[in-house]
Parts: sequence; structure tokens; C-alpha cells
Amino acid sequence: MVQRARVVVVGAGFAGLSATRELAKGGALVTLVDRNPYSTFQPLLYQVATAGMGTSDVSYPIRTFSAKWPNVRAHRAALSKVHPGEKRVEFEDGSALDYDYLVIATGVTTNWIGVGGAAENALPIYSLHDAADLRRRLQHYLEDTAAGRRESAHVVIVGGGATGVETAGTLAELRRRTIPLTHPEIRPDQTSVTLVERFDYVLAPYKPRLRDAAAAALRRRGVRMRLGATVAGVEPDAVVLDDGTRLPSDVTVWALGVTAPKQVADWGLPQGKGGRITLTEALNVPGHPEIFVAGDLAGQPNALPQLAQPAIQMGKHVGRQILAAAHGRPLSAFSYRDPGIMATVGKAEAVLQLANGLTMRGLPAWLAWIFVHVAYLLGGRNRVSVLLNFFWRYGGPRRSATSIASPD
Amino acid sequence: MVQRARVVVVGAGFAGLSATRELAKGGALVTLVDRNPYSTFQPLLYQVATAGMGTSDVSYPIRTFSAKWPNVRAHRAALSKVHPGEKRVEFEDGSALDYDYLVIATGVTTNWIGVGGAAENALPIYSLHDAADLRRRLQHYLEDTAAGRRESAHVVIVGGGATGVETAGTLAELRRRTIPLTHPEIRPDQTSVTLVERFDYVLAPYKPRLRDAAAAALRRRGVRMRLGATVAGVEPDAVVLDDGTRLPSDVTVWALGVTAPKQVADWGLPQGKGGRITLTEALNVPGHPEIFVAGDLAGQPNALPQLAQPAIQMGKHVGRQILAAAHGRPLSAFSYRDPGIMATVGKAEAVLQLANGLTMRGLPAWLAWIFVHVAYLLGGRNRVSVLLNFFWRYGGPRRSATSIASPD
Repeated sequence: MVQRARVVVVGAGFAGLSATRELAKGGALVTLVDRNPYSTFQPLLYQVATAGMGTSDVSYPIRTFSAKWPNVRAHRAALSKVHPGEKRVEFEDGSALDYDYLVIATGVTTNWIGVGGAAENALPIYSLHDAADLRRRLQHYLEDTAAGRRESAHVVIVGGGATGVETAGTLAELRRRTIPLTHPEIRPDQTSVTLVERFDYVLAPYKPRLRDAAAAALRRRGVRMRLGATVAGVEPDAVVLDDGTRLPSDVTVWALGVTAPKQVADWGLPQGKGGRITLTEALNVPGHPEIFVAGDLAGQPNALPQLAQPAIQMGKHVGRQILAAAHGRPLSAFSYRDPGIMATVGKAEAVLQLANGLTMRGLPAWLAWIFVHVAYLLGGRNRVSVLLNFFWRYGGPRRSATSIASPD
Repeated sequence: MVQRARVVVVGAGFAGLSATRELAKGGALVTLVDRNPYSTFQPLLYQVATAGMGTSDVSYPIRTFSAKWPNVRAHRAALSKVHPGEKRVEFEDGSALDYDYLVIATGVTTNWIGVGGAAENALPIYSLHDAADLRRRLQHYLEDTAAGRRESAHVVIVGGGATGVETAGTLAELRRRTIPLTHPEIRPDQTSVTLVERFDYVLAPYKPRLRDAAAAALRRRGVRMRLGATVAGVEPDAVVLDDGTRLPSDVTVWALGVTAPKQVADWGLPQGKGGRITLTEALNVPGHPEIFVAGDLAGQPNALPQLAQPAIQMGKHVGRQILAAAHGRPLSAFSYRDPGIMATVGKAEAVLQLANGLTMRGLPAWLAWIFVHVAYLLGGRNRVSVLLNFFWRYGGPRRSATSIASPD
């Protein structure tokens, strides 16, 4: 009988859960570590931020996950340091774990790209806390505007990727259809939704036809589009562009790319573009074959888009490689099977592009988008709950489209 | 045409919403004021505290409610002072509203009954914030106990009314059935659930047969019953009884009665037992017929149990009286139609007592309990969502019975 491998998986996002599942089924002794007691379903954070879902709908307790297998344990702690030489990881609370194999799947963090005032005045949508904060801010500002305590509640979204487009489209729909009912004291000129993107188009990874369709759908919903515009600074009440334009902004949403946390540099591992860790083709670290990286932190030669699918597939691959290594079998190279990409603009509007070039938009793409997102959620309760929330937001009475006002 | 009455309703609980609904249908101009942007469904707060439901499932946005009628406006503010002479209410943020009629439905607050250390060391379950705080505390302590950072996670619940019984029964079920799966590191002797009640029985308003059935059901679930015990003090790690007994308690839940907030005394209105406002039979204030009180703050001659049904019926009555007064019609006395009372102990276990003396317990009472609670929720989304959560907690896999771990 082969000795059971002790594996520490740090990070319970798509990559970490996927690796854990594979390792658990293969009989490894896994400790799954995360700074939070829950795993977050990031693709729907914009729904939490726009008050269409509760925080409980897009999060799943890590211990409910780990309880599925007797050989998986959970540990709540924030990673502080990796000691590759001693095969040990240290956590911020002073605890430490020894490993035979390590999976680093801690993900990345907000990239302020050196824009002055961004970190102070803009809100990201990367974590569940971010999304809850943004929702609270939006709700307070709308309330204050209605009560006459504020002049306006203008929103500027920086970044025309999927998150930016989804947030802008959803807020614009609420502004048109729901807020006039729930906040009748607010005049239309006191609110606006603006999307700023440095390219001349949104959704860069998509074909021009889909990019244009998405931009047109946003315009139809009343989003002010500032394409080809670079942000020079963020102030408490404005976003300042390169050309000196000041866009009034009471709430600035930061929907730009992400980057590796600074602390990664302390671990003595090779880093490439964006601070991502440079890997072998099998997704382990050159010189430290017992350390694997999966998800957003994985760099060349597998620096894939920072999406759920690459993370899930990398996690699975890493899990299999560790099981292979523990049994003395050779490792194999990772190859990504691209199933395509999709993004939604709002009710009955989405764009979908398969790897084989097939594209789809409008209602069929939107239904596909909902189906895929519900299917990839963790837990039956969350699946039904998210479906219910979709149904309610898009099929229920207009005044109910923001149905969440809890104090998260 | 009669002049439309300007009515200010302060408090968006059962009483305030019920009054607003009646006034709105009658054409009055209503401003509904609450310190929170949401209305809370208090009967299910223990489900939030025990991680079976999200905060969004038991709260409903006030502006989604007010948007139903063009003659209802919402205002988010905390009541600070009533000026009966000037027919004006002042709020903590400095705003003020003039009224023709005022409905005070602000409810009551935790009653520490003078027990030393209670306010500092015990947690109530009266507001949504309370429930979220308690859940967070319980989850942290379980996590810390599993990680060896704490010795134990003992829970003592003070008060054997419905809230205390429901919380104790639910926690005991989780301790027996779920925590051994989700927190396998914790030994059974590191956790316990104790219920302290000064009477010799729980659920005082019920017939002895039902009280005994509830106590037996709690014991079967492993709850340590300390009946006939009076709490002398609460320490950070213990509840001290009158006879000197120290019950180890890492988390102390305060499920005792409630009392009027101190500030009520500043309003110059007549107060009776528990600080409740003394009223006429029509539920308005003697000497100030334009001020009505509904819900938990309503005192003699209508000091009813602090439950949903009395609040709902009082709110409706108050709404009708104001419409009558505005049209110059005489007021009528309030009379409570008691539909009975019910409480649940846990899965498939509840007690139900109708006003006509009929009683029920076990599974039929539990199903009735669920039906009634879902029926009285606000909003279709919440009804389905709460039902889903019940189903999941009691019919899903044991490891999923605590399915909420969001950062509320």
C-alpha cells in the first residue's frame, strides 16, 4: 500500500475546490485552507452588489464541502508565507502546516494600476465583502438622495470586461425600471450609469460583432458609454479622464483586471507578468515539483484568462498530478479545453462565443448563461435559490427587482 | 372631498406595515419611517442565528413595500423625539416630520432585567443584526475549537419562551447531527446546549401538557435543562445562577422579555408596566387622540403578548381608526381575536394551542407552524426562499443543515 500523501490546498475558490475534490476521491489526506469560512461564487457577485441576491446565495460553507469526505479537513486561516525548503506553510494567525504536496490556489487581488485615488475612492467587486459593501453604499446613497441629504447618486464603472458590463447593464435597468417606483423622490438627472473603457469597445475577448451588440444593448438601457477613455484619477465625487474630463461619480466601481498579492514575492517562487507564478507544463513550480499552482495565480506557460473554467480545469489537473506523483507515476502537461466565454448585459440579453467560433446573443444566450451559472454553483440549496432570485428579479414585479436589503 | 390625512407611521415591523397597508388602501398620505431600510420577520431570526437562513430571506426592503402605493413614501431615520403639542416627530439625523396622525410602532428593546454582565456578555436575538452577530460568534467559536484555539464552544440560552426553546432545540440538533460531520475535530464534551428558565417549565403561555412535551423534546435532543433556575450574572465564559452554580458558557444567548426603550419616557406620554404606553380602548393616547400606538409598545388596556398576531391586528385597527377620524366618524374599541399560539422545538416537533383550547403537537403541529410562518412572510421571493431553506435544513443531507456562512 502506497503511503497516503498529505496535501495542503490553500484557497477555496474554483481551483482549490476542484483540486480538493479530485484529491479527496483519490484518497489523499487533504487540508483545505481559506481565510473565509465560505467559498464564493464570484461570477454572480455583481448580482449581490446590485441587490438581486443575498450573500448567502452565492457563498457555500467550506466545512459543508469538506464534510463530504473523511479524508478532507478544513482550516480557516490566511496564508502568510510559503517555505518551500521546509515544505511548510505559515498562516497569519501563527498556525502552520507541513505538507508533502502544496496547492496554491489563493487567487489574486484588485489591481489599482497606479491610478491616484482609486484605492481610496473606488470599490472593487472581487470578494463577497466587496459586493456587500458596494450594495450598502448604493442603497445608502439612493436613500440619502431621496431624502434630500445628497444631491445625486451617479455611478461610474471603470472597466468594460464582463464584470463591468454586467454591473453597468444591471444598474441601468434598475435605474430605468425600479428606482422610479421605489425612490419616487429622485429625479432622473440625479442618477446615471457610466461605463469607462480604455479600448474602443467592451468585452475585448469577444468578436467585434458581439462587442458591438453588447455596447448597443448597454446604450439602449441608458448606460453612458465612454469608450477609448483612460482614467487618470478617482476623486470622492468624480472620475477624471486623461483628457481632463470630470465625470461626476458618487459611487465608482472598479471592474478592472486583477494582480498577484504583493506577499507572493516573499515566497521565493519564480514570478512572471502580473506577479503570476511561473510553472512547468504540469502546473508545478520548477525546482519545487511538490508545489502546484492553480487558478488566477498560475502563470506561464498556462497564464489563462482569470475565469472559472480555467481554474476548475487547472484544479482538477493539479489534483490528478499529485495523485500520480504520490504513486510514482509521471506527470502530464496541462492543456486547456476552452468551452467558450459568455457575459450578460441584462434581462434577456447576453453574448456567448464558443471555442469553435459559434456565437449566440439575445434571449437564447441569456438562458444559456443562466443555465451554466446555476449548474456550476455549489450545493442544491444555492442552485434553487439563485434560480429563484433570477426569476424574481427578471420575471417578478418591477418594484421587486431589488429585493435584498439585509445588513450584510 | 375630505382632506387627505397626513399620517406618519414610525416603525416597519408587523404593526407598522399592517397600519400602513390599511391607511394606503384608504387613501391617506403615509410616510413610513424606520431606522433600517428593511422590515424584519422576527419569528425566524433564530433560523438566521443558527445558520439555516440568510439575512436576505427574513428581511424585506421597505421601499419595495412602499412602492406598491403612490400615496406611501418611505423615510429612513431613527425616531428620537415625539412632540405631541406640535404634532411633530424628530429623528436622530436631524430631520423632522409634521403629522395629522401619528402611529408609534417602534417596538421594544432587549430587557437585561438588571442582571450584571448580561449587556456585556450575552447576545440577544431581537434584530437582524443581533441574529447575524450571534451566527458569526457561533461559527467563529466552533472554528476556533476545531482548530485548537479554544477549549470549548458551550452555549447557554437564558429564557424558556418560544425564542429560547426554538434556539435551544435547533442548536442541539446541529450539535448532534451536523457538527460531528462539519467539525470532526471537536469532541462532544467540548460543546453543549443549556436552557435556563426561572419557572419550573418552558413555554409559560401553554397548557402543562404542551410545556412538558416541549421540555421532553428538548431533552431528547440533548439540551441540558435548568428549570427553576434564576440567573444572577453573566460572565464572559459562564452564566452564574442564584444558587452559585457556574454554567460554562462561551456563547450566552439572551432570550428573555423585552422592554420599552428609555427614550420613550421623554415623549410625555403616559406609560405603564414595562414602559409601554397607556392607551384608550381605541389604541390612541388619552389627551392626544391623534397619536396611536400599535405593537409591542401598546400598553393597557391592550397590553397583549409581544407577538406577530397582536401587532398585525393592532396595526390594522389603528389604520382604520385614523381613516375613521379623518372622515369625522367615531372610533371603535380594539378587540383581539386570538388565533392561538405555536412554537417549534426542532425537526418535526412543535406545539400548537388554539384559542378554543384545541392543542396539537409533533409533525402536524410542525407542518402547521411552517405553513403559518411562510404565509405571513412579506414577498413571494422570501416565501419560496424560506420554504427552500426549511426543506434543505430538515430534508437535505445532514452536513448541509448549516448552509449559511456569508459574511453578514
